[in-house]
Amino acid sequence: MSNKYEDDSLALHTDAYQINMTETYWHDKMHYRKAVFELYFRKLPFGNGYGVFAGLEKVIEFVKAFRFTESDIDYLRNVVGYEEEFLDYLKEIKFTGTIRSMKEGELVFGNEPILQVESTLAEAQLLETALLNIVNYQTLIATKASRIKQVIGNQKALEFGTRRAQEMDAAIWGTRAAFIAGLDSTSNVRAGKKFGIPISGTHAHSMIQVYKNDYIAMKKYAESCARRKNKVFIPLVDTYDVLRSGVPAAIQVAKEFEGKIEFTGIRLDGGDMAYLSKKTRQMLDQSGFTSTQIVASSDLDEDTILSLKAQGAQIDIWGIGTKLITAFDQPALGAVYKIVAIEDEHGKMVDTIKISSNPEKVSTPGMKKLYRIVNTLTHKSEGDYIALQEEDPQKEGRLKMFHPTHTFISKYVTDFEARSLHEEIFVNGELVYENPDIFTIQAFVAENLNLLWDEYQRTLNPEEYPVDLSQKCWDNKMRIIQEIKEKVKGRTSQ
Amino acid sequence: MSNKYEDDSLALHTDAYQINMTETYWHDKMHYRKAVFELYFRKLPFGNGYGVFAGLEKVIEFVKAFRFTESDIDYLRNVVGYEEEFLDYLKEIKFTGTIRSMKEGELVFGNEPILQVESTLAEAQLLETALLNIVNYQTLIATKASRIKQVIGNQKALEFGTRRAQEMDAAIWGTRAAFIAGLDSTSNVRAGKKFGIPISGTHAHSMIQVYKNDYIAMKKYAESCARRKNKVFIPLVDTYDVLRSGVPAAIQVAKEFEGKIEFTGIRLDGGDMAYLSKKTRQMLDQSGFTSTQIVASSDLDEDTILSLKAQGAQIDIWGIGTKLITAFDQPALGAVYKIVAIEDEHGKMVDTIKISSNPEKVSTPGMKKLYRIVNTLTHKSEGDYIALQEEDPQKEGRLKMFHPTHTFISKYVTDFEARSLHEEIFVNGELVYENPDIFTIQAFVAENLNLLWDEYQRTLNPEEYPVDLSQKCWDNKMRIIQEIKEKVKGRTSQ
Repeated sequence: MSNKYEDDSLALHTDAYQINMTETYWHDKMHYRKAVFELYFRKLPFGNGYGVFAGLEKVIEFVKAFRFTESDIDYLRNVVGYEEEFLDYLKEIKFTGTIRSMKEGELVFGNEPILQVESTLAEAQLLETALLNIVNYQTLIATKASRIKQVIGNQKALEFGTRRAQEMDAAIWGTRAAFIAGLDSTSNVRAGKKFGIPISGTHAHSMIQVYKNDYIAMKKYAESCARRKNKVFIPLVDTYDVLRSGVPAAIQVAKEFEGKIEFTGIRLDGGDMAYLSKKTRQMLDQSGFTSTQIVASSDLDEDTILSLKAQGAQIDIWGIGTKLITAFDQPALGAVYKIVAIEDEHGKMVDTIKISSNPEKVSTPGMKKLYRIVNTLTHKSEGDYIALQEEDPQKEGRLKMFHPTHTFISKYVTDFEARSLHEEIFVNGELVYENPDIFTIQAFVAENLNLLWDEYQRTLNPEEYPVDLSQKCWDNKMRIIQEIKEKVKGRTSQ
Repeated sequence: MSNKYEDDSLALHTDAYQINMTETYWHDKMHYRKAVFELYFRKLPFGNGYGVFAGLEKVIEFVKAFRFTESDIDYLRNVVGYEEEFLDYLKEIKFTGTIRSMKEGELVFGNEPILQVESTLAEAQLLETALLNIVNYQTLIATKASRIKQVIGNQKALEFGTRRAQEMDAAIWGTRAAFIAGLDSTSNVRAGKKFGIPISGTHAHSMIQVYKNDYIAMKKYAESCARRKNKVFIPLVDTYDVLRSGVPAAIQVAKEFEGKIEFTGIRLDGGDMAYLSKKTRQMLDQSGFTSTQIVASSDLDEDTILSLKAQGAQIDIWGIGTKLITAFDQPALGAVYKIVAIEDEHGKMVDTIKISSNPEKVSTPGMKKLYRIVNTLTHKSEGDYIALQEEDPQKEGRLKMFHPTHTFISKYVTDFEARSLHEEIFVNGELVYENPDIFTIQAFVAENLNLLWDEYQRTLNPEEYPVDLSQKCWDNKMRIIQEIKEKVKGRTSQ
């Protein structure tokens, strides 16, 4: 199939309605009005007690490059037939606003603004779809990986789900998100090159099949390992028969190549891994290879790992594929991007709301600031606190925190530090932030988890972490809901 | 974060072990031996009765461009430290072999070769990960979309899941797969430009919020619709209150703009859609807008659509997002890529097998041909037939078809056409196939479905479609399994 448009710029990676709305705003001279949108999800995925934010690196890439190309404009002219003057406007558009965001690796909870876009209405609207597409997936995977890491503890985990990932971008950005959240390496070489993630890999069943014999194939492989700098030899032992052929062949080759290779591990990829790992451990120990580690893979996730550990499986390193890279048990995060304020005809910012018959879908109006309230005595977090722009919770000696739905649940905090969770990323269109390298982000996740009591970190039925609104923020929301209700009532009784 | 490598070529979009194995083969002078790999999945997803193959377009793109760049080589040198001579070899490598594949839009079942790579061992091995990554996802989504289409029938369906897709590639290649399988349009403008898929879109809740009033916002939107060629006006009515504000406002605006816009639809995005759609239908009909259609969206899939239809919901057009683009109920297809034959030292091709303690995971050795056996009296398919290279089932007057696991289940077919399901895509490295445009592929899917009895097409508990091995193919498999068993036994009793 031939494509008549030359480039594949990402500016059109958006829903058609975003451009339709922009046209309406442009015709109505509303497009340049200042607007504030906030990106957040309502509910944590996997029943987890916290989320791990990822996606900022790609958001920065996307926003920096955001321009409609000539061929984008041609397409819109040919297919939709927008007016030339509007297309001229699109040709010139680029991001001129301000983006505030959590840092990558920050812990995130339901209903708090991860990212805030303050810009012209047109620009902010045109970014929506791509920003959600990026943040939804990467945050989902970082959170899934963090759950797996909770169960694995100090053991190692390798990400190798590329072949089952949902296309190529998911493979590389997903493995980056998993690394940030605490995994140790990736099998995807492109992700290694692009992001600096350590890569790892052994060999496949096909290599044994090519030589039609475990022993011969492993010998050839050992010769090649012996020539490499690191000498690492980790044979895969389940092509024909793990205990009768694979493991004995691996041991025999390791003995023949003693001193020339490092027999650091042996890999099992399926079958009854509790049983096979125990037997394999015995065979290795009996042959003196007591420090050779057992790597296991085969549809693993936090539940199967926990079960294998409970069965006393002798597994040291976990290879995680499909269940992580697709977030198999919940493959989508439902983050939304809602307008919270818009400039009126007098240049004044006015708060906006989205009402719903589902109370959880009612948005919180106004541009907000987000704080983590850290108890300075326990060094643990008391919860997150969402305040209006003009408020400074640090100035309150005694901070009232109350549940935004069940408002009678409340507490007062006294010895606290109110840590702002938003960084400026773009200011008036200029990128002012440098994203840290992935190792720094990985360490940042670990630091952040130290602020959470264990009760929020367990993978099954964690406690609900408080995300509270300030009194002013709550009052403002109630006032606006009331106003809308009266307007709707007025309309119906006209 | 700065990346020190300039380009992001896709040749490294592979698992590290593929390159490790290639190195072993190269050192052992096995890399140039001819090998045959087949790509197939074992089990249909979603309990569906058939799959729809998608991914060939991207596979062609990938294989055509397959070259390691200078920066790829630099990375491998710096990070893994392969020998220079091996790196020199990688620098020169490109695909020189033959690829046979099903056409996109072909129906596919478990354990049949979708795609066959016959090439040097090195080249075939290096393509594995990317081919799986592409075919697994796109075939999964085409199959999911086809299930949804089964339930929707002749009504229209729009794909708009980009914001919940697993990163950007999934959004655009997923929506293409959905279109092929029978959906009518996409919201993703980039996919519209890249693939020629019709795009569709209305406006978002944010537009109503900007004007703080359904009526005013819809009026502005109608003005903009009136200026467009197609005049289409489809307002979204659930920002504040569907029945008290949204629908009345839409009707009022439509009356005011009579003759200037086409009030073709009205969109509901949540709430109790059975109830709301019926009430909306009444209100539209009472105002004379009997041909205005109701578009519904909100986490729809084949199950919720079926349920809404059973409730008598008045929905004419279905907007499908998250559940389709992520294949929510089963977000990964488990296709594998297995070596089935390899050239020996005398230049003779020898069949290979992968044994497993799980009988379903035992591969079928040898390069195979795949046929659909179409009954020339009923014009329906009797099943698929996998034969060895040298066989021609069309020459048999009376074809025996038997179940490859439960071999006593068999039948004889007499009046039949044996349609070959593989096309040559690349021959000796040259692309010899032109992929049809997406509309032709979409029509091809519909044609293919006509060959299947309804019993294979129902979404719940379909009949199992026969995928049978020829007697020769089955005998060959049994012989090789026996040989391996004896070798393993021999080794253990050494």
